[in-house]
Amino acid sequence: MKQSKMLIPTLRDVPADADIKSHQLLLRAGFMRQTASGVYSYLPLAKKVLQKVEQIVREEMDAINGSELLMPTLQPAELWQETGRWYNYGAELMRIKDRHARDFALGPTHEEVITSLVRDEISSYKKLPLVLYQIQTKFRDEARPRFGLLRGREFIMKDAYSFHSSKESLDEAYNDMVKAYSNIFRRCGLNFRAVIADSGAIGGKNSQEFMVLTDVGEDTIAFSNESDFAANVEMAPVHVQYEKSNEELATLEKIETKNQKTIEEISRFLNVAKEKCLKSLLFKVDEKYVLVVVRGDHEVNDIKVKNLLDAKSVELASSEETLNILKAEVGSVGPIGLTEEVDIIADYAVQSVVNGVCGANETDYHYTGVNIGRDFQPSQIADLRFIQEGDPSPDGKGTIQFAEGIEVGHVFKLGTVYSESMKATYLDENGKSQPMIMGCYGIGVSRTVAAIVEQHHDENGIIWPVSVTPFEVHLIPINMKTEAQKELADQIYNKLNRESVSVLYDDRNERPGVKFADSDLFGFPIRITVGKKAEEGIVELKLRKSGETLEVAIDNIVDVIKKQLNSY
Amino acid sequence: MKQSKMLIPTLRDVPADADIKSHQLLLRAGFMRQTASGVYSYLPLAKKVLQKVEQIVREEMDAINGSELLMPTLQPAELWQETGRWYNYGAELMRIKDRHARDFALGPTHEEVITSLVRDEISSYKKLPLVLYQIQTKFRDEARPRFGLLRGREFIMKDAYSFHSSKESLDEAYNDMVKAYSNIFRRCGLNFRAVIADSGAIGGKNSQEFMVLTDVGEDTIAFSNESDFAANVEMAPVHVQYEKSNEELATLEKIETKNQKTIEEISRFLNVAKEKCLKSLLFKVDEKYVLVVVRGDHEVNDIKVKNLLDAKSVELASSEETLNILKAEVGSVGPIGLTEEVDIIADYAVQSVVNGVCGANETDYHYTGVNIGRDFQPSQIADLRFIQEGDPSPDGKGTIQFAEGIEVGHVFKLGTVYSESMKATYLDENGKSQPMIMGCYGIGVSRTVAAIVEQHHDENGIIWPVSVTPFEVHLIPINMKTEAQKELADQIYNKLNRESVSVLYDDRNERPGVKFADSDLFGFPIRITVGKKAEEGIVELKLRKSGETLEVAIDNIVDVIKKQLNSY
Repeated sequence: MKQSKMLIPTLRDVPADADIKSHQLLLRAGFMRQTASGVYSYLPLAKKVLQKVEQIVREEMDAINGSELLMPTLQPAELWQETGRWYNYGAELMRIKDRHARDFALGPTHEEVITSLVRDEISSYKKLPLVLYQIQTKFRDEARPRFGLLRGREFIMKDAYSFHSSKESLDEAYNDMVKAYSNIFRRCGLNFRAVIADSGAIGGKNSQEFMVLTDVGEDTIAFSNESDFAANVEMAPVHVQYEKSNEELATLEKIETKNQKTIEEISRFLNVAKEKCLKSLLFKVDEKYVLVVVRGDHEVNDIKVKNLLDAKSVELASSEETLNILKAEVGSVGPIGLTEEVDIIADYAVQSVVNGVCGANETDYHYTGVNIGRDFQPSQIADLRFIQEGDPSPDGKGTIQFAEGIEVGHVFKLGTVYSESMKATYLDENGKSQPMIMGCYGIGVSRTVAAIVEQHHDENGIIWPVSVTPFEVHLIPINMKTEAQKELADQIYNKLNRESVSVLYDDRNERPGVKFADSDLFGFPIRITVGKKAEEGIVELKLRKSGETLEVAIDNIVDVIKKQLNSY
Repeated sequence: MKQSKMLIPTLRDVPADADIKSHQLLLRAGFMRQTASGVYSYLPLAKKVLQKVEQIVREEMDAINGSELLMPTLQPAELWQETGRWYNYGAELMRIKDRHARDFALGPTHEEVITSLVRDEISSYKKLPLVLYQIQTKFRDEARPRFGLLRGREFIMKDAYSFHSSKESLDEAYNDMVKAYSNIFRRCGLNFRAVIADSGAIGGKNSQEFMVLTDVGEDTIAFSNESDFAANVEMAPVHVQYEKSNEELATLEKIETKNQKTIEEISRFLNVAKEKCLKSLLFKVDEKYVLVVVRGDHEVNDIKVKNLLDAKSVELASSEETLNILKAEVGSVGPIGLTEEVDIIADYAVQSVVNGVCGANETDYHYTGVNIGRDFQPSQIADLRFIQEGDPSPDGKGTIQFAEGIEVGHVFKLGTVYSESMKATYLDENGKSQPMIMGCYGIGVSRTVAAIVEQHHDENGIIWPVSVTPFEVHLIPINMKTEAQKELADQIYNKLNRESVSVLYDDRNERPGVKFADSDLFGFPIRITVGKKAEEGIVELKLRKSGETLEVAIDNIVDVIKKQLNSY
């Protein structure tokens, strides 16, 4: 393709309203323009990336026996009323009336339409399982569209739905889908993790989010540096074998610690490591008070407290409540000498503290020489703290790190929620009517494009992975008016096209500086510069990612480019 | 792909509400289902056809330097207000309010969005011309959705727009587009014609419609059986060299023709050929009366009368007006002896009538022996009649036939209508601001699929052209439970997949009759039946189009299939 024929409006300056790198770069490199808040036009370069991502999605869906269909954007309200989502979905559901005043939703997702379709056509277990998917523009009227393609109101999704006659069959499709998603995001060049999205029962993965690890995002992800493990920080279990020192047990002593309240202060004041301090926090759990004890260098994870106690609500007690129940201020409470009114639970790490320090339940006093079992006895010892960077990964492989995450995919075992409300049933082997068991699986296609840019750029522009780059090669004659350069460039252009290497030919009469700056913004893997050595048939190759340059003779150019693309 | 994994719900009976063949067959063969009136879900087989058509469109658009983008469905009302179409488009424009009560249109077409986009990004003649296209779902709230995919409310279009700094450049893009469209429809296996859509000045083709010739449709097309010529019947010029007989001029005689009014009646009553009768009709043209004379076997084309007289309105005079002006009833009027008050114009064919018959402007009387020039003199002689089947084609090649037409494409020189109302200007070589000159070009992609079916079917189902077939081969073991058959079918399936021959494997446990009926409905070019000779490694190939069958040994199967597909 010749650059003069394409619409690629680059910008030198960072657009004022673009906060994150992908948004800035996709605007600056002329990949897209905003048509309305949260609504974008994908210009030719972006369209090429979208198509490549879509093709990868298609190949991986087909590989797991998915079959592609295309459902409508206009969805009759009646279907949404069957599931109740017409009433519950809120302002994000865009609604429209036709000329006969009939209500429709603009599809944000297609559970209703596909369930209705399958309900009408499938009646026997013999026709199950089915995995159906589509790649389509979706609509969601976000209250605050932001971050460019990451949170728009009109966006491209791949959504898939599966229908089964047994849980085992659903599990199989779900596992296939997880593998397919991993392949897709890997092929898109993304550093991502599949994150357990619900706290669920042990082993029961009913839902996973695929998160791309970046500096921006709406969730913090704890992931292993050596394995696939990843979870929202709230959800990550802590699997640590805490070592307990052999030192002799000291006597319990109460000492004055005037105005020393935080672990930080106590640790400095008494000159003991934070790991030797016990952090005690009073929670109101449903209607009862519970003192939660963790090690001084850890933080209480109230979701874990809630799960352990199977509670409806868990709230930190107020200063007044703490003073009232424990007769001491927040900074001076601890697990020793409590009445039976207050339950004590402790994190596993507390077991490893020998001769520790804790509040004495008397304002401005702490105990030293504290030992669990001898001085206090929790009713339960469990995993109650947040995972931390540096902790071992719960799967035993590697060390935990944190990153922000962009959700690019979500797999979900729906079960029979939709099939029951919409009466999508089949006859089983015994002729008995059963609700179909369903799964649903989504990928944000346009969001994936933004996530790729978020992970692949430098200060000069985008750095596309080969798999999704709009063009593999950017061909730039320094001066189109120099006959030798133009001729050699034409020759290379034809040669590469013949060999199915995709190439954008910068045939514009622009200054070299403008051409190079644009080229860096675009971020195709290889730049070919046709300059002074054109008469000798020699050009310069520059690799966008490493900045490495090499001189190549026209005769070898195809081989060298193919080799570089393979190893890029 | 295995058939058991796909959703292909076939129907034995013709659906009650489907009037035309394409609608019936696409429903019966399980290609689509209606989700709401004029709104369809494309099931997996249809999706494959759509993708093939889209790929053909893409290739031909890219070949003329079009570049693909994707504009949004949600279009801000402000843009439509700039061109006034927000107010003029009527009920077909679907309108929606977002959560902030801002108005949007659901795009039925994208002139406003693209003009706004190009206006904001292009300011110099140096960046022109530009040809941009997209393939996208469009919305139009038809009052009466009908004919399945032919007139729906949500449908897939390819729309292209071009921007130019000169009329010559627009002409070039327009001509390229006409060629590309011809390639596209030819590759889709369609018998179509490019039809001049406006009456335009001679040589000035500002708009053409691409019409697929069928038995159903909303326009009648006059086309040549030997060339590309085609036009709406209203628009087709008549180019006939009428032969004039040498017989001697007879005397003009007035004879009584009581109750003989129509050409039919006069011709029978006087025993003269219709070709010898003159048909005279009084028209009110703007404020004057004009008698239009054509040969008895021809029909007056009032559009041609209007164009000839450069009139604002042309209406047939009422019986009262005729009686009043010509002093005779409608069946007895003619061009002889009129006052100057009534202008006479005649069709070319009238010149060829020697010793003809016409009304005598006296009720129940006609003249015989009528000769133009001697007995009456038209003020103008011109092409004033409708073209007829059997007429020579106006381009001199072949004979005119009629067919109904389905419009699948439209090319249009917009000029500066949109660029002027939206102030899309560029600076020319002299630094002067000029409105961009535009063209727009549409293809109904989903409609094209229906048109293909309309032209390619028989009583048993669809007969897909190879270029757009969902699968090239339908592989059917008679009995999946017979080990030899299943094994051979598996072997063929793997073999064809390896060779990139697309194949649907009917792995269902259905009776052969059901499988064959489904297969005929689907209409893939080649059916492979694995039956009794499976143990010998022999299968039957059946060509869907001709019904021809041949036995093939497994060793030759790939070669035979590739050969058959090439010559299908």
